[in-house]
Amino acid sequence: MKVFGDKQSGNCYKIILTSSILNLDIEWVDIDILKSETKADNFLKMNPNGKVPILEISQDKYLSESNAIINYLAFGSKLIPKDKYEYHKMLEWQFFEQYSHEPYIAVARFINKYLGLPTERKNEYESKKIGGYKALDVMEEGLSINAFLVGETVTLADISLYAYTHVADEGGFDLSNFPSINSWLRRIQSIPGYSAM
Amino acid sequence: MKVFGDKQSGNCYKIILTSSILNLDIEWVDIDILKSETKADNFLKMNPNGKVPILEISQDKYLSESNAIINYLAFGSKLIPKDKYEYHKMLEWQFFEQYSHEPYIAVARFINKYLGLPTERKNEYESKKIGGYKALDVMEEGLSINAFLVGETVTLADISLYAYTHVADEGGFDLSNFPSINSWLRRIQSIPGYSAM
Repeated sequence: MKVFGDKQSGNCYKIILTSSILNLDIEWVDIDILKSETKADNFLKMNPNGKVPILEISQDKYLSESNAIINYLAFGSKLIPKDKYEYHKMLEWQFFEQYSHEPYIAVARFINKYLGLPTERKNEYESKKIGGYKALDVMEEGLSINAFLVGETVTLADISLYAYTHVADEGGFDLSNFPSINSWLRRIQSIPGYSAM
Repeated sequence: MKVFGDKQSGNCYKIILTSSILNLDIEWVDIDILKSETKADNFLKMNPNGKVPILEISQDKYLSESNAIINYLAFGSKLIPKDKYEYHKMLEWQFFEQYSHEPYIAVARFINKYLGLPTERKNEYESKKIGGYKALDVMEEGLSINAFLVGETVTLADISLYAYTHVADEGGFDLSNFPSINSWLRRIQSIPGYSAM
């Protein structure tokens, strides 16, 4: 299977981390978002939404959306809970990530790190920080109860949320007041097969 | 099982529609978002993220995120594909909905319908419309190929995306240039057990 992605993107990194923990063999095709390669015709044929990452399963089977892709790749593995309630808690965190976390923390990082925090986006950046800290508060609360987001073992929920949380400082977030998040970050970094971004 | 929700919310309506098609017995508890009932202490205990809907499975088991909830409720039913690829295409559309559709179409509707399009949010509203039309283009392309988003039968992907698409006009979206979306809306409205918002 082939992945079309940009290694600077946390969404793409979720796939690298999942594959690395599960020891999956994935062929990587580099796509440069900043050069608009996601808007090229041959790219849009694979994903009309024009976003990385994309998983090519076969010549006519493509999957997009990072969290859908890692669910596909990890299907049946130890990273996906067998218990019905725990499985749906995992999905809950993954939807939380896409709606309440990524649009704030990843976008703040993009504006700060890749665009160099231009004056005309300063207000937007500040509002992203407010939303980002709210998401971190929700994670901190969850992680003060359990070692991982869904319980005592690592699941895809952790991978989905680790991707942009562990580089939140690049978006200007200060994690020093989030002790449970910090312990969790270290716990993930010590998982066998862990791969850095 | 109990659902805490606001019937004006498309996210909550997904649960009503799923329960209605599957003939599930759900107890509904009304929560008024505009009265900040989602920020009350007893609400935040159930969902620290302070959002409806919430599914109460038992006194200590809660599930939030509309798409996680309908996946839980429809688990094992005809609304969830058995095929591995189709199942993950369904998830793909559900993540697309939360990242690329809802933040534009639902928020434009909120600003337009509930806030009365105040001058200070006009710019934001216009940018939401651009994003919303992009999401509609992606759906139109998918629905020009198949009767439903994942293939020839209805799945949760359709329910997730129907919720805010069928009231997109309330956000100021003109659907007349989206023939495949219009046929799909009618197709969903004719499903046995269909329930209006």
